[in-house]
Amino acid sequence: MTKRPDVRQAGKGKGGGRQMIDRLIDAVKKKANPSVIGLDPTIEMMPEFLKKKYFGECGRTPEAAGRMFVEFNRSIIDAVKDIAPAVKPQIAMYERFGEAGIRAYNETCRYARGQGLIVIGDIKRGDISSTAAAYAAHIGNVDIQGAQSETWYEDAVTLNPYMGSDGIKPFLEICRSSDKGLFILVKTSNPSSSEMQDLVLADGRTVYEACGKLVSDWGAELIGKYGYSKVGAVVGATHRAQGAKLRKSLPHTFFLVPGYGAQGASADDIAGFFDENGLGAVVNSSRGITSSYKKSDDFREEQYAEAAQAAAVKMCEDLQRVL
Amino acid sequence: MTKRPDVRQAGKGKGGGRQMIDRLIDAVKKKANPSVIGLDPTIEMMPEFLKKKYFGECGRTPEAAGRMFVEFNRSIIDAVKDIAPAVKPQIAMYERFGEAGIRAYNETCRYARGQGLIVIGDIKRGDISSTAAAYAAHIGNVDIQGAQSETWYEDAVTLNPYMGSDGIKPFLEICRSSDKGLFILVKTSNPSSSEMQDLVLADGRTVYEACGKLVSDWGAELIGKYGYSKVGAVVGATHRAQGAKLRKSLPHTFFLVPGYGAQGASADDIAGFFDENGLGAVVNSSRGITSSYKKSDDFREEQYAEAAQAAAVKMCEDLQRVL
Repeated sequence: MTKRPDVRQAGKGKGGGRQMIDRLIDAVKKKANPSVIGLDPTIEMMPEFLKKKYFGECGRTPEAAGRMFVEFNRSIIDAVKDIAPAVKPQIAMYERFGEAGIRAYNETCRYARGQGLIVIGDIKRGDISSTAAAYAAHIGNVDIQGAQSETWYEDAVTLNPYMGSDGIKPFLEICRSSDKGLFILVKTSNPSSSEMQDLVLADGRTVYEACGKLVSDWGAELIGKYGYSKVGAVVGATHRAQGAKLRKSLPHTFFLVPGYGAQGASADDIAGFFDENGLGAVVNSSRGITSSYKKSDDFREEQYAEAAQAAAVKMCEDLQRVL
Repeated sequence: MTKRPDVRQAGKGKGGGRQMIDRLIDAVKKKANPSVIGLDPTIEMMPEFLKKKYFGECGRTPEAAGRMFVEFNRSIIDAVKDIAPAVKPQIAMYERFGEAGIRAYNETCRYARGQGLIVIGDIKRGDISSTAAAYAAHIGNVDIQGAQSETWYEDAVTLNPYMGSDGIKPFLEICRSSDKGLFILVKTSNPSSSEMQDLVLADGRTVYEACGKLVSDWGAELIGKYGYSKVGAVVGATHRAQGAKLRKSLPHTFFLVPGYGAQGASADDIAGFFDENGLGAVVNSSRGITSSYKKSDDFREEQYAEAAQAAAVKMCEDLQRVL
């Protein structure tokens, strides 16, 4: 694996232009790594010395937790920014702490972006028309009586498709005119995803296959230089056969793949999610990277970022093995 | 219609106990009104004098917008609190403004709750296991190394079912032991809801009917004194026939019904969503109430709250006509 330190240019290259998906694929190629580092902090994940520092200063408050998460994330970002092309903060892990958590989420996104990483906000929002347009602030500016304000800092976000096009269109509109992207839930990594997503339709398809077709249609007009659309799909690593089948039926849909590592899927499970060029998917790992210091004898807890870096390199090598 | 001023007790009556759904139905009966007032502020909705006040003081910033929304909402809440049993703030309309918006959302929820209204947070979250548990902070406390913190202030929230039980269970657990409730998307009010929700399954049911069955199963253990579960369903007013059919097939599932008024559905469309006792559903109106001052010659813009009150009374009478 070649590590390229000039990642800070990733978003600015002329190759990327205004196509977020090209920018992501360029970064994957440059770093020879289809990994996404999940930034999903919990109190339990934090090293004891950080808990002492922040809870000692401010008490065990949401504010202290949020500030601690930002320090933790910044160190992780610094450690992986030359290895991985993208990070994926899961907003729920911040939202849990109310306003203070949201502040930490935004600071994390801003810092990662400033370090040249692509930020995929795992927000899984889904609502209709004017409400969807409000959520679209995650990837667009907000107009306050003519004054433009940037209130969120993601490059791409995940969305829920249950409400159909009405929930997606406001996001598509922004993607059309700016360097932003989407990943829409198709087949999620959890066991009970079958309850809704595997229901079999009268025409023989499953619900998730029908959903995949919708996602492909939504993205048809937004295809970049590598043949992939700015409108991608979330396809869980835990569904080996289904993922490989979707790869074939959705040749222009890029996959964001959760479920590797802590959720149980291996690199072999994911091999079929990639195309013949080793592109077509990025694979997320969260706890497997950020909590790795807890499972290693090689690192003290103060070295949590070094441990994460080592885990990120190991994950990259593991994925490259099957590409 | 009888207006009862002692609504502030609604959440505290012995009848309600620890069953949020009983508390909601008690309030509906006491106020003889199955309305929910949607608190979905936009800049366009705000009276000019408020915009001058807040943007003049602080500039056209997210902070100014958030503070303005809180003043607006407080006046609306004061005006409708003796008429309607519940309010439903749509979090997207606040989240659009980032952290400042989230602060306004939380202040709105807290104020409404303090005034004795039941607060249904329209958050439509949906994720898996530990992530769903993080989102469940909306209705439960957060544990920060043993210190309990309340970071959100809703009595009930809406959820998205696409990921199945894994996304719902952490919320069910909280509902089991506390006075909180859920409304899970089944058939939404928007036109494109058909793209996913009306897909026909091999067994002849639609996806939304299968979803309704899941919701009913999830709520089976949480049924209150009126025969309705703490786990309700979102069923759009714009689907007259489907709503009536769901009412029959889901006798223990209470409905939260958006789509009345501004979205085009009338009281007659909704009649079939109620049971033979006139219970079984609450109907939301947002813009139809909060923007009513704009469409009336009877009120100056300074009287936006009085206009909202008049619109709320009119809506109540309109609904009572069909019960």
